[in-house]
Amino acid sequence: VGLDPVWERLPRSIRQPAEEDAKAGMAGPVLDAIRRYCSGVLRAVAPHVPCVKVQSACFERYLWPGVEAYHHVISEAAALGLLVIGDAKRGDIGVSAEHYAAGCLDDPPFSDLDGSKTITGPDALTINAYLGDDSLEPFINLAQKRGKGLFALVRTSNPGGDAIQGLQLTDGRTVAEAVACVVARAGSRHVGQSGYSLLGAVVGATKAPDAARLRELMPQQIFLVPGFGTQGGKAGDVKACFKPDGTGAIITASRSILYAYEKPATEDWMEAVERATVEMKREITEILD
Amino acid sequence: VGLDPVWERLPRSIRQPAEEDAKAGMAGPVLDAIRRYCSGVLRAVAPHVPCVKVQSACFERYLWPGVEAYHHVISEAAALGLLVIGDAKRGDIGVSAEHYAAGCLDDPPFSDLDGSKTITGPDALTINAYLGDDSLEPFINLAQKRGKGLFALVRTSNPGGDAIQGLQLTDGRTVAEAVACVVARAGSRHVGQSGYSLLGAVVGATKAPDAARLRELMPQQIFLVPGFGTQGGKAGDVKACFKPDGTGAIITASRSILYAYEKPATEDWMEAVERATVEMKREITEILD
Repeated sequence: VGLDPVWERLPRSIRQPAEEDAKAGMAGPVLDAIRRYCSGVLRAVAPHVPCVKVQSACFERYLWPGVEAYHHVISEAAALGLLVIGDAKRGDIGVSAEHYAAGCLDDPPFSDLDGSKTITGPDALTINAYLGDDSLEPFINLAQKRGKGLFALVRTSNPGGDAIQGLQLTDGRTVAEAVACVVARAGSRHVGQSGYSLLGAVVGATKAPDAARLRELMPQQIFLVPGFGTQGGKAGDVKACFKPDGTGAIITASRSILYAYEKPATEDWMEAVERATVEMKREITEILD
Repeated sequence: VGLDPVWERLPRSIRQPAEEDAKAGMAGPVLDAIRRYCSGVLRAVAPHVPCVKVQSACFERYLWPGVEAYHHVISEAAALGLLVIGDAKRGDIGVSAEHYAAGCLDDPPFSDLDGSKTITGPDALTINAYLGDDSLEPFINLAQKRGKGLFALVRTSNPGGDAIQGLQLTDGRTVAEAVACVVARAGSRHVGQSGYSLLGAVVGATKAPDAARLRELMPQQIFLVPGFGTQGGKAGDVKACFKPDGTGAIITASRSILYAYEKPATEDWMEAVERATVEMKREITEILD
């Protein structure tokens, strides 16, 4: 389940206590509401899914108090026994990539942060591979050291993703397939006993025609597959992201679960979130049978 | 001048008051030292250069107190009359890209942040274009609304940048050139009276052989050219990034200026920073004559 919380779409009962403060331009009460909502979502989905993806952008828009809230949401998810993917799509070179790995993936080593005893980093981080193989190394090194994971953007779920990713190279591959090869190669030195690398790949659920070829090119990558549900990805579309044994892909849906309470409209948003999660799980399990 | 402050390389006089706290894992005193250093650097370079680039990663590694310090450094630079480029290399799709634009480029609208009256966003932001043209739109829309700018990564200065960016397409272009065309097209709807678009391009100083072609493909883009100095870019290498009239490129050096006090070793680090800045400016001006 993806947590991409947006103030304007939170249930009325969550928004109400902060509505006036939000109008007055206060970030704190809005973030408190977002945290309350995320907390409810996490408790509703924890019995049903192994993993959540938390969208950093939704929190970063509230600047540093938002970043603090992001880490608290991650830590709460971890405390509920969920694996957590930090969806921050970072990418830079050299020492800057090291800094991002430290700030966005590592467990915070600082003793003077609020809640420093309970705050953890995510279990995995999304990263951008356009800068090339050496830009991945600092992230890989930290993930290796800490037993964490990474998902490099290979094929994104947006309509405009084709503008670069879909271009044809002279060797017959697309750009996305070339990125897949870079990811497969960089990841091959860090493969665990399950046969999967710590370096996985993001492959959008809306790019079904490409998934089979990307699966061939990246046999050791776990696929993180966003875009299921609202963005148009269907269960059948994501089948090719799995390996024949039914492992190897993490399918995520965000808005179709977070805002399930809107349609049909209900005040019991936790029940709606849980119901949508169970339904999504059923749909995916069905295509794997 | 690029501000990529790293604790371990700060001058002894700046580190000394925080040395024990740093060993005890405290982020606050380390960030205070980094802010003191950045403040000195900004005052040393402000009379000589029009613009600074602040590396977000160096601050994000200290989590939310780091993000707060980053915004204070940006605001101090702005108060000194400098244009500020936030080097955060963000990239995402749809509503997530909107959130990043709000959090990383916009002026904070919140009334309850420490220093909210004096805190500004940067004048421009670096972004990643791998996700395609529609991923640029939310950033462009905000930049347009606020009179701000963007620099999309086209050709990065790291050795591994070739792994993706240097690949050949069937139409004769490289991947970087295809990204250049996406950037040129997306930027062409937002060109000011100077003839430049609000959407510029990052072109590494170490990629001199590609610069002339990228200049042709992006006549309306201001080039942000990192990698001058420590990364190996020389003044002659960056000439092709400028247009024939000597405008159109912002050349940045970070480590060769920030750590100029190391070689020759001196305690007067502000003087060393100023000297290195003047020297870099002289080198660049020379090639433009």
